[in-house]
Amino acid sequence: MIESVSPAPVRADDVRRHNLALVVQHVVERGTVSRAELARLTQLTKGTVSAHVLELLRLDLLVELGAQAEGRVGRPHTALALNGERHCGVGLEINVDYLAVSVVDLLRRVRFHRVEAIDNRDVSPDIVLDRAAQLVRGALDAVVADGLAPAGVAAAVAGTIDQEQGLLLVAPNLGWRDVFVAAELTSRLAPLSAPVLVDNEANLAALGELWLGIGAECGDYVHVFGEIGVGGGIVVDGSLFRGSHGFAGEIGHVVVDPNGEACLCGGRGCLERVAGQEAILGAAGLPSTSATHLGQAGSPLGELIALLEGDDPRALAAVQRAADALGVALAGVVNVLDPDTVVIGGVYASIAPWLAAPLADRLASQVMAARTRPVAVRQSALGPDGAVRGAAALVVDRVLAAPDSVAAVNGGV
Amino acid sequence: MIESVSPAPVRADDVRRHNLALVVQHVVERGTVSRAELARLTQLTKGTVSAHVLELLRLDLLVELGAQAEGRVGRPHTALALNGERHCGVGLEINVDYLAVSVVDLLRRVRFHRVEAIDNRDVSPDIVLDRAAQLVRGALDAVVADGLAPAGVAAAVAGTIDQEQGLLLVAPNLGWRDVFVAAELTSRLAPLSAPVLVDNEANLAALGELWLGIGAECGDYVHVFGEIGVGGGIVVDGSLFRGSHGFAGEIGHVVVDPNGEACLCGGRGCLERVAGQEAILGAAGLPSTSATHLGQAGSPLGELIALLEGDDPRALAAVQRAADALGVALAGVVNVLDPDTVVIGGVYASIAPWLAAPLADRLASQVMAARTRPVAVRQSALGPDGAVRGAAALVVDRVLAAPDSVAAVNGGV
Repeated sequence: MIESVSPAPVRADDVRRHNLALVVQHVVERGTVSRAELARLTQLTKGTVSAHVLELLRLDLLVELGAQAEGRVGRPHTALALNGERHCGVGLEINVDYLAVSVVDLLRRVRFHRVEAIDNRDVSPDIVLDRAAQLVRGALDAVVADGLAPAGVAAAVAGTIDQEQGLLLVAPNLGWRDVFVAAELTSRLAPLSAPVLVDNEANLAALGELWLGIGAECGDYVHVFGEIGVGGGIVVDGSLFRGSHGFAGEIGHVVVDPNGEACLCGGRGCLERVAGQEAILGAAGLPSTSATHLGQAGSPLGELIALLEGDDPRALAAVQRAADALGVALAGVVNVLDPDTVVIGGVYASIAPWLAAPLADRLASQVMAARTRPVAVRQSALGPDGAVRGAAALVVDRVLAAPDSVAAVNGGV
Repeated sequence: MIESVSPAPVRADDVRRHNLALVVQHVVERGTVSRAELARLTQLTKGTVSAHVLELLRLDLLVELGAQAEGRVGRPHTALALNGERHCGVGLEINVDYLAVSVVDLLRRVRFHRVEAIDNRDVSPDIVLDRAAQLVRGALDAVVADGLAPAGVAAAVAGTIDQEQGLLLVAPNLGWRDVFVAAELTSRLAPLSAPVLVDNEANLAALGELWLGIGAECGDYVHVFGEIGVGGGIVVDGSLFRGSHGFAGEIGHVVVDPNGEACLCGGRGCLERVAGQEAILGAAGLPSTSATHLGQAGSPLGELIALLEGDDPRALAAVQRAADALGVALAGVVNVLDPDTVVIGGVYASIAPWLAAPLADRLASQVMAARTRPVAVRQSALGPDGAVRGAAALVVDRVLAAPDSVAAVNGGV
């Protein structure tokens, strides 16, 4: 826009906030950068850049790495970088058969990660949230001892979420309805002053893949997060597509068999009845109890992988059946959304060597435009950790987008 | 953005084009407006506005309606409005069982409309394009005689399209592959200098609904265009969602029965095998030959409507079966996209009194978030005319967005 309708009035404080974020954005893109380079990149005056850098140093968002020659004549410049030793994002995942917590610093390095196998089905939210808060507190104690300061907590829950209210509307596999997760966690984590938010776990897994995994190489993509439920996250032009009310991506409840079994969502023949973790394990003749998701030897998922590696016919048939159902549902999704890539995450990443090829075949035969532009099928880099790490990274993303928000958080626990 | 990375160099001509479009946009929004109001609305100087208005008058894009008092003290201002008597958009629809042409002026009034029943299946594209060009030429002759000048021709085709190349990649129901529709039509319409473009018919139907029907009241919506094939168009934030390669919206090839009959697309059990026009007519015991879409008395669709009005059990069961299949497919689409509204268009609009309620029931039972936010089901205002009128309106939209483009078109035929 060149000459155009006038924008809303701008206050000096808005300008300062905008430019602080602009400086941080350039540091993120470059990794290390001098004040002089920042002035050139941002087109701000050197004085403005210096003032902003000073504030960002004071807020412990940047660090000075010391003098670095820039490969040209003249005196060396002090290099600036993100401070990886202070602010951090805390991710919590409340899933059906496990709780997980992950802490990520500004450099998106994982500083703490713990998964606790526990069957949360039909357990009162109060009890599960008590346990979840305890897990978060343990993580906070550990990272605060290392000098880190939590900038926020993001909780990933396998259900539909009203983000504004921090409200879980319905989580069919947990058997929960209308739980104010953000408020409940906030009160349990007092006196933590960092904000607590809640989001859909499949959305956070898709964002985790974008920020910490292979998402940035995937163009527009649909991320399918396979757990006991099956969730989806849609990334278009580098952003999460949330739909009109924030409920987009519910791939697990796409119908793959109109005459199939009833689903906990109230529908019938939903994808997750056939291709969810329990359905796969059951079809392979394995127990489908909790603690499966790690794929460790001895866990049911670990056993499934061992069977697949041994070419066990029943295990192979179970995965083929899941691939067929995923193919039917995802072909529909690809026909409607036309993405570049389908990323298979969660437990699907663990069985990708057996799942990806038959799924790609199904898509090739059932997607209208497959002859012209076959959709790629790729294995998630984060696998079952996608949601909890995406949650932690979401907090970091918010800090980088609004750097002075950390001033309002005392970082104490 | 306040202070930010510098934009690309701006040429004076870009500024002029931008501001011409800005003036036109305000005329569109207001209907009638004075030069003084335009200066206030655009924040351009009165001199600049006067110069732009002069150019727009000279290009026959605006007209002066004469002096109008503005309800306040002072001398009356000359009111400006869009010129509905000169430039027009020409829409052509190449469907499986009919051709249609429609001409829309800048005020989006239909100035010409003709539908020709003809079975185009497995007819050589050469022959169909000859006939289509003849139909367009007839429309051009008629509107040019009325003083209108065609600013462009947009062809709606029921298939996947490479828009940049004006290339139809595949139209399963026509049996066509790799037809350069835009170039073929251009050569047949010579010496017409107006540009010819081609787009997917369901996309154009969704846009037609947005510009000429109820779309603007529907929030984010999925428009399902039922013909022999079933197409879909997705509107998000007032714009068409085209996907990564322009192939989004292929709802007709969402699988509703994995064990169903083979589809012409190469897949199996696709929605349009069960809920397309021919499937509905066949299930109702009616012939499914061409010329159905008008719903006139005597046509098979007219007969279906008569049977439905008489509570004929077989006809009612045929529509119920289609509603069930549409419900399965659309529940998946709604679960994934989370729109506000599903708009049923094409022949579905004609049978909406029998189709909408069972479809809404299906969605209520199978959409995850339906309890919180039930998706609305609405009948398209344009029905089977949606695609051809959307095509004509697309040309008008492009003229309004780039007003001086008409200078390059001599408007002759």
